Amino acid sequence: MQAPATDTPAPVQADAVVIGAGPAGLFQVFQLGLQGLRARVFDALPFAGGQCAELYGDKPIYDIPAIGACTGHELVQRLCAQITPFAPAWHLGQRVDRVQPLAQGGFLVATAQGTQVHARCVFIASGVGAFEPRALKLPGLEAFAGTQLQHRLDPDANLAGQRVVIHGGGESAVQQAVDCATAPVALRAARITLQHRRDIFDAPPALLDQLQALRAAGHIEVAIGVASAIVQEPGRLTALEIINPEGQPRQLPLDRLIVRLGLVPRLGPIADWGLPLERKQLLVDPATMATSVPGIYAVGDAITYPGKRKLIVSGFHEATLAAFGAAEWLAGYKLPLEYTTSSERLQGFLGVR
Amino acid sequence: MQAPATDTPAPVQADAVVIGAGPAGLFQVFQLGLQGLRARVFDALPFAGGQCAELYGDKPIYDIPAIGACTGHELVQRLCAQITPFAPAWHLGQRVDRVQPLAQGGFLVATAQGTQVHARCVFIASGVGAFEPRALKLPGLEAFAGTQLQHRLDPDANLAGQRVVIHGGGESAVQQAVDCATAPVALRAARITLQHRRDIFDAPPALLDQLQALRAAGHIEVAIGVASAIVQEPGRLTALEIINPEGQPRQLPLDRLIVRLGLVPRLGPIADWGLPLERKQLLVDPATMATSVPGIYAVGDAITYPGKRKLIVSGFHEATLAAFGAAEWLAGYKLPLEYTTSSERLQGFLGVR
Repeated sequence: MQAPATDTPAPVQADAVVIGAGPAGLFQVFQLGLQGLRARVFDALPFAGGQCAELYGDKPIYDIPAIGACTGHELVQRLCAQITPFAPAWHLGQRVDRVQPLAQGGFLVATAQGTQVHARCVFIASGVGAFEPRALKLPGLEAFAGTQLQHRLDPDANLAGQRVVIHGGGESAVQQAVDCATAPVALRAARITLQHRRDIFDAPPALLDQLQALRAAGHIEVAIGVASAIVQEPGRLTALEIINPEGQPRQLPLDRLIVRLGLVPRLGPIADWGLPLERKQLLVDPATMATSVPGIYAVGDAITYPGKRKLIVSGFHEATLAAFGAAEWLAGYKLPLEYTTSSERLQGFLGVR
Repeated sequence: MQAPATDTPAPVQADAVVIGAGPAGLFQVFQLGLQGLRARVFDALPFAGGQCAELYGDKPIYDIPAIGACTGHELVQRLCAQITPFAPAWHLGQRVDRVQPLAQGGFLVATAQGTQVHARCVFIASGVGAFEPRALKLPGLEAFAGTQLQHRLDPDANLAGQRVVIHGGGESAVQQAVDCATAPVALRAARITLQHRRDIFDAPPALLDQLQALRAAGHIEVAIGVASAIVQEPGRLTALEIINPEGQPRQLPLDRLIVRLGLVPRLGPIADWGLPLERKQLLVDPATMATSVPGIYAVGDAITYPGKRKLIVSGFHEATLAAFGAAEWLAGYKLPLEYTTSSERLQGFLGVR
């Protein structure tokens, strides 16, 4: 038996823990509130909204029922406003590493940051996982991560005198090249190379026009070819080697390599909790969203069941059934359906009576 | 073989017919639109909204995702606005009596009003059915329906000189009694009796205060007891007999009997189409919302499956899966998921590109 670390406070008690603060997780909090269950919400990101805020915060979504169009940010704001009466406790910027059934019932939920909660039930609403930058896989390159190799560049970075190679063919790579080429002169790189396997870039027309203008003016060089190797001296990355369309190798000397290949989701620790998975998705009973562990439910893009579609509208439905499933499991009997329009009890929870 | 009636126009063609214009039916039109399928919408009521507009048009609903609170009417308006790009054809005030599979594929959909449509697929979103007044069941009473027996009274009805008995203990019965007692003097009944099995009425406090004041002033009599029989002369209803709390019979002489026992849903002709029912609900495959007849789908409060809850949020999800189910059945292959945020094809359908 291991003694608890002295700097770990005693776990707080909670009715429910919701892992993931995307649309499904936020509406999970609402539906738990209607069941009289208070939730603590965890998300690895430091803000609510998940994928919805991260990937399309400013882009319109058209298929939320009864909302003609709203951006990801607007949707998240609306859902956060809706759960206000249920005053969830927020644990943002915390990654849940452990969900452990306890002998006395309930679960110990623990984060990488040291938070511990004893919860009566757990709701996994973690979507396709945390988003991480897609890596460029070349032997030896990873050793330079965080020094000469970067995936995100501080907008105020001083690149004066440096040779910068930006690898990628999508919007984020093109935007990065344009940003570098239009930085204040005092901070601007000496040489900016946008490196992609072919001379076709997937970006909005206005951005492509900017790229074209900066290429024509000699501020951005475009190097076409397949990245094949790195060139290094001891402790220093000196060039990226590419094979050009004619099959010839070419070296691009560099001081800094910025890889912008987009984001990939990683399921993270959830994959290690022993819950049954099918193609990296949690298998649930679609009647209650229960996983194979009694008391652990899962909703949204993290799950699969026959007919599952990864749509927000389905996440809302799943959160509703999961709240009923958990409330009935905790109560030990079937609960009647009540309507917020007519139920004094529900209106009491909502604070509208 | 029967010759077609000469006054029946040739059936129009449609991708899809949606039966029921409540929230689930309206969102069904939206999801069909995203699949490139145009819908014709039928409802027995002369307006869109179904139960939502009929039963709680002006009452707030709190559990529509990302909408803090909205009335039934507001929800219907928002859904109608959302389906505008898909320009459904409306057939309101028409009751679908027949859905008949055709030898060449598809279905003949026919209404009591004579409209006929050939549809490739059919979506039943008829909720718990059409709402009808709950009947007072006493031998012989039904014969006076529409003459001395009524369920709704024209607000301008001339009751001068008449003895009116109003049967019921809920809000609609109390409101009816108050309305009769406060009608213009020239139209007001000579005697107004509110008849209920006990001296407790289920109505808002302000309305109960009005009732109390009118009772105290002698404008409304309250007769307590269980309605047990009618008294009649040939062709004429003369009194309602009740058994009072002491077990004694008492006759309430009357010229007009107004029964206000609330509304009950009737499934209607759908019960006769040969689709499998469980406790008056259509059994569907929850992966696609398909009924046992290929090409007929069902969503919303009309259906059941393991875990089903009669909530609007679930109707939205069901309509989404039904649209995918039908589109894949019509195409004959699995369709990829596209997002309205990123798909040019869907944005083209929505008219937002």
